[in-house]
Amino acid sequence: MSIDSLTALVRTIPDFPKPGIQFRDITTLLADGPGLAELIDQMAKVAGPLDPDLIVGVEARGFILGAALALKLGKGFVPVRKKGKLPGKTVGIDYVLEYGTDRLELHEGQVPQGARVLLVDDLIATGGTAQAAARLLREQGAQVLMALFAIDLPALGGLAALEQDGVPSRAILLFEGD
Amino acid sequence: MSIDSLTALVRTIPDFPKPGIQFRDITTLLADGPGLAELIDQMAKVAGPLDPDLIVGVEARGFILGAALALKLGKGFVPVRKKGKLPGKTVGIDYVLEYGTDRLELHEGQVPQGARVLLVDDLIATGGTAQAAARLLREQGAQVLMALFAIDLPALGGLAALEQDGVPSRAILLFEGD
Repeated sequence: MSIDSLTALVRTIPDFPKPGIQFRDITTLLADGPGLAELIDQMAKVAGPLDPDLIVGVEARGFILGAALALKLGKGFVPVRKKGKLPGKTVGIDYVLEYGTDRLELHEGQVPQGARVLLVDDLIATGGTAQAAARLLREQGAQVLMALFAIDLPALGGLAALEQDGVPSRAILLFEGD
Repeated sequence: MSIDSLTALVRTIPDFPKPGIQFRDITTLLADGPGLAELIDQMAKVAGPLDPDLIVGVEARGFILGAALALKLGKGFVPVRKKGKLPGKTVGIDYVLEYGTDRLELHEGQVPQGARVLLVDDLIATGGTAQAAARLLREQGAQVLMALFAIDLPALGGLAALEQDGVPSRAILLFEGD
């Protein structure tokens, strides 16, 4: 399956979550068995050679691709969640959103000092959440080998913002003009 | 890796989310690469022979095992989410919780009429959420081949409640006495 075929499996929903936004909905790709397998193959080709110790996925859609990629690479999966969702003792980071702030949390000790981690999410827009997750991981003493996304909206500059933070960043599918 | 070894990877957190509850935390198992692979192998042994068309996972931890299992079986993955999270047109079901009600939603058309689906979540307690998800899937005309969980707390009766609804139900790891 080609990258064009994968791209064609992503559905565009106009004016979500607000007027003027073209939402790229990956659920139509996920629901396609060969499409999901091919996307994970493509992500594994990029991430596999880095040989990460752990795959970290950001709640909630990052759990889907992060866990599938962890299985593909034979690695463990660690979730980064919104405030108050993890049952154990956590470490966290507050970050600024368009309106107000939010907090990401990680189980204390689940990303050991010196761990070489791959950060995964489904889509990168402006990159604020991914930047916060990468900072949280580094605060634990982890090395963020790469932030890897299924979809990039290059016009919003998220990959560039991550790279400026020193996080190598890649995406499999690009949607220009967003 | 034995079932006992898998069970030992699950961490128990006392008094979460409230006093007297022993929370079974699967994140310690997920973070272990061989443990995650073995758990998905065990789930695939149960679910594979059913040859489902689609794997359905319930937000949020059900995304982790559901997506990994979908990849393992070469099937598509469809998320069931909390109210207002899915970008496309949805169908939904309201259900009663201990305090108040909640709503689960599914993208309209993503589980076609007649689809043979496997419902996946990480843990079953009383089974209220899984029952609601199974009902929602059946309302779309799907056949719920099985509800499959990583962890069952048999004392809470969730698997039995699902079976009473006519949904064959299984779990890989049992924690008695909850």
